[in-house]
Amino acid sequence: MTAQRHAVVLLSGGLDSATVLAIAGDDGFTLHALTFDYGQRHRHELDCAATVAKASGAVHHVLKLDHAAFRGSALTDGPEVPVDRSEDAMSDGIPVTYVPARNTIMLSHALGYAEHVGSRDIFVGVNAVDYSGYPDCRPAFIEAFQSLANLATKAGVEGDSFRVHAPLQHMNKSEIIQRGCALGVDYGLTSTCYQPAADGTPCMRCDACALRARGFREAGVIDPLIGHQTAGEQD
Amino acid sequence: MTAQRHAVVLLSGGLDSATVLAIAGDDGFTLHALTFDYGQRHRHELDCAATVAKASGAVHHVLKLDHAAFRGSALTDGPEVPVDRSEDAMSDGIPVTYVPARNTIMLSHALGYAEHVGSRDIFVGVNAVDYSGYPDCRPAFIEAFQSLANLATKAGVEGDSFRVHAPLQHMNKSEIIQRGCALGVDYGLTSTCYQPAADGTPCMRCDACALRARGFREAGVIDPLIGHQTAGEQD
Repeated sequence: MTAQRHAVVLLSGGLDSATVLAIAGDDGFTLHALTFDYGQRHRHELDCAATVAKASGAVHHVLKLDHAAFRGSALTDGPEVPVDRSEDAMSDGIPVTYVPARNTIMLSHALGYAEHVGSRDIFVGVNAVDYSGYPDCRPAFIEAFQSLANLATKAGVEGDSFRVHAPLQHMNKSEIIQRGCALGVDYGLTSTCYQPAADGTPCMRCDACALRARGFREAGVIDPLIGHQTAGEQD
Repeated sequence: MTAQRHAVVLLSGGLDSATVLAIAGDDGFTLHALTFDYGQRHRHELDCAATVAKASGAVHHVLKLDHAAFRGSALTDGPEVPVDRSEDAMSDGIPVTYVPARNTIMLSHALGYAEHVGSRDIFVGVNAVDYSGYPDCRPAFIEAFQSLANLATKAGVEGDSFRVHAPLQHMNKSEIIQRGCALGVDYGLTSTCYQPAADGTPCMRCDACALRARGFREAGVIDPLIGHQTAGEQD
């Protein structure tokens, strides 16, 4: 059998998921990128997801979810994300940006979509290095979700098993960036900031911007997004 | 500690989930009923869910999901549900009304909502007797989801464990109806039919109507919905 294999890739428009999409493509999968529109405040991400999907040749699906689907997080509630870049805030405990059951919800929808399109391979950009504080980024969670997928579905029960791929799982940000660069990812198309300006300009103050900046610095690569931004500022 | 315990109950507007809501109430929980509006064709169910929730004193939350969230099923695609009431069609294999990852998706949202409102108890009306053909109605699936919930969440990781209750799991339809009647459930408020008329009148031909009718017959109870319907037809 040399039938074409299909992969469903969770694509947020951020750096990590753009890299995962490139990895799945490099693995030879026909790509289906799945993005959630849940009324996120950083809506610039949705435009980035569309651009990244198009650049990769992926079929792009945007699934609308009720804003209330993701609750109790600084990312979706309230006027502004608390900013605390101290080492303690970034490495200890569960971050304020934790969203209850976020990855479980997203993977569940990816599972339904994958079964529908005949894909048995789901790719997700979690990593357990930079995001060790999030319970649903840990390897044990990914393994448990894969087991659940094979109990929960017609395909799984019939022995046509699902695999949940988390290729960034053991990479830190600079390793992710290096891998993506090797695969030709244009990180200038991505968005990372928790509270960008209306035109997508990153704030350079939030945790996400700080992690991204450190990642590029450690990878020895210039962030094309900042290059773009700097050029813009000179106008 | 005698703090009030909160339960999140998945409520479709059907007979099973109305019974589960009554069971959770009888167990002493403060009730939060969660209903999904995913553009289902049998929208009369949504009105029933609201009425059932109100009658039980539950807080009622309706979460809108993209129609595309549930795919590949006779319940949500195409113009009409295939009707096959032969014993074979009802008891063998996975029914045409199987929706990819449906219960995984619904439980995931219930989990996020539960963590948000401080509930650690999720109730779902699956049963493994009448719906043995659905992979995501089996006890093994419910157990796996509960394990996942405790890996996936802040509360679970911190030892404040979630429980997924499926109190109908080992009941058949007539046992469910008897239990509900003992708890005072008004089944005249519920909807079961896969393709009701615009006013909610059941078709009496689909699998769901057939299972319901058989359940009431075996329980030795008159279905108040049919009583209502008959009265309506006499106008």
